[in-house]
Amino acid sequence: MNIGFIGLGVMGTPMAGHLADAGHSIFTCLNRSPLPQDLADKGVEVVASPAEVAARCDTVIVMVPDTPDVERVITGEGGVLENVREGSLVIDMSSISPIATQDLAAAVNAKGGLYVDAPVSGGEVGAKAATLTIMCGGPQAAFDRAEPLFDLMGKNITLIGEANGAGQTCKIANQIIVALNIEAVGEALVFASKAGCDPAKVREALMGGFASSKILEVHGERMINRKMDPGFRINLHQKDLNLALQSARALGVSLPNTATAQELFNSCSANGGGEDDHSGMVKALERLANHQVAG
Amino acid sequence: MNIGFIGLGVMGTPMAGHLADAGHSIFTCLNRSPLPQDLADKGVEVVASPAEVAARCDTVIVMVPDTPDVERVITGEGGVLENVREGSLVIDMSSISPIATQDLAAAVNAKGGLYVDAPVSGGEVGAKAATLTIMCGGPQAAFDRAEPLFDLMGKNITLIGEANGAGQTCKIANQIIVALNIEAVGEALVFASKAGCDPAKVREALMGGFASSKILEVHGERMINRKMDPGFRINLHQKDLNLALQSARALGVSLPNTATAQELFNSCSANGGGEDDHSGMVKALERLANHQVAG
Repeated sequence: MNIGFIGLGVMGTPMAGHLADAGHSIFTCLNRSPLPQDLADKGVEVVASPAEVAARCDTVIVMVPDTPDVERVITGEGGVLENVREGSLVIDMSSISPIATQDLAAAVNAKGGLYVDAPVSGGEVGAKAATLTIMCGGPQAAFDRAEPLFDLMGKNITLIGEANGAGQTCKIANQIIVALNIEAVGEALVFASKAGCDPAKVREALMGGFASSKILEVHGERMINRKMDPGFRINLHQKDLNLALQSARALGVSLPNTATAQELFNSCSANGGGEDDHSGMVKALERLANHQVAG
Repeated sequence: MNIGFIGLGVMGTPMAGHLADAGHSIFTCLNRSPLPQDLADKGVEVVASPAEVAARCDTVIVMVPDTPDVERVITGEGGVLENVREGSLVIDMSSISPIATQDLAAAVNAKGGLYVDAPVSGGEVGAKAATLTIMCGGPQAAFDRAEPLFDLMGKNITLIGEANGAGQTCKIANQIIVALNIEAVGEALVFASKAGCDPAKVREALMGGFASSKILEVHGERMINRKMDPGFRINLHQKDLNLALQSARALGVSLPNTATAQELFNSCSANGGGEDDHSGMVKALERLANHQVAG
């Protein structure tokens, strides 16, 4: 099958590679970077624009950084929308605003096309291993068409709801919990360490009880061992919490601890830590307490 | 062995029962409530005061609600301290201030006695099943003497540090993480629900990924199914966060999200929810958003 794939970055390159490996013919267009050699070897074909990609492919996948990027690719000049027709399927796997997503989907629907928002979690490791978690919003029929492609890129694939934006909303919910669980472990370890306890012993004692979480296990260990290489970078998580806070304002939801977590990330950036793993949020709490977590 | 056990409430009654079942002779004194029939049947003996308990027993366990209660039992008039002597071991299994704990331990040490702070988690269920998590602070020799008794009441038993207060500090760290993970799940589910998603689908999609936690599993389900019967009551968790915030002030630690979580609990109490399970914190977030989590 001809499949368009727009956005061949750290995530998109291995994802498109899996689709090519399965025998699909992949069409793309380039923005700044040249076509990765690996994808050239797999026969990925480069055309002039997103509109051209859509002309050649009934199914177009988008995987770009942020809301304005998706808008440029789909509704911008020379965008996918110019060649959306009856039978087109647009799949946005970027992590963007659920509210902008509804507008994009409406534009695609107006020309007879289907739209699925399908942001992922699992990072570069998950993209390479084809084990991404994929959270989807869109009509059942659109999801059913997309699912065989998702199966080539991910493992835990859920249709959250038939309204477009449901996938993006779920992704934001994920990023809220991850950020706040990091903040929770950070507060607990800074508190315990400044009180004179070995934070590693505290972490061990809490694993398995009601305080246990994936974050206590993975990011708690990073905070104690001072391993702040990403992983998932603080400046990316700031983008996601910005989506959370903007969407919350639009929806009429109050997210007090998400707001604080964003401010702590801002403090990390201000102190040169924007490229750290998001477990580096603990450093902002350490600055507040004038104390570094130490065993 | 003669063992003193002061504080035969919801937790203390089954804990003392396990010690009696193992063949120990249990001595207690009563405050307001009569001796539970079950413990009378097991031969638990009532004497006049904490001092009298300490006169009869080298090892005295205390399990009462709050810091002032422990102070009354140990250093108050007719308290345990009056008969502490070389060879005495005082074990405080209440959840109280780590700073007050240091003073209590110093008073016991000054009369030649040993002190272990050993707060628990696992609640009434864990107390009855003898599966409590026990977090300990105190000298290794004191811990070694106490451990065979802990083995009769709990499962995951850790000496956090040899300084008294380390157990209490770890318990506070546990309560910080539990409260903040509840808050995190609450923010995510209110956000997703107000955005029109089925919160049960969102919870399912997030389980197994980086957002996964014991709280998402257990308390997330409670928020969705509106099962707010305790469990662990909000007014008890307020007591624990009060310890966290007071200790943080004394230590010079800043706990911004713990402070917010306590305010959300306060809102629950103000609205008649102080006796709800702590997953009821979501109701405070729902009031802020004028929206109830619903499928």
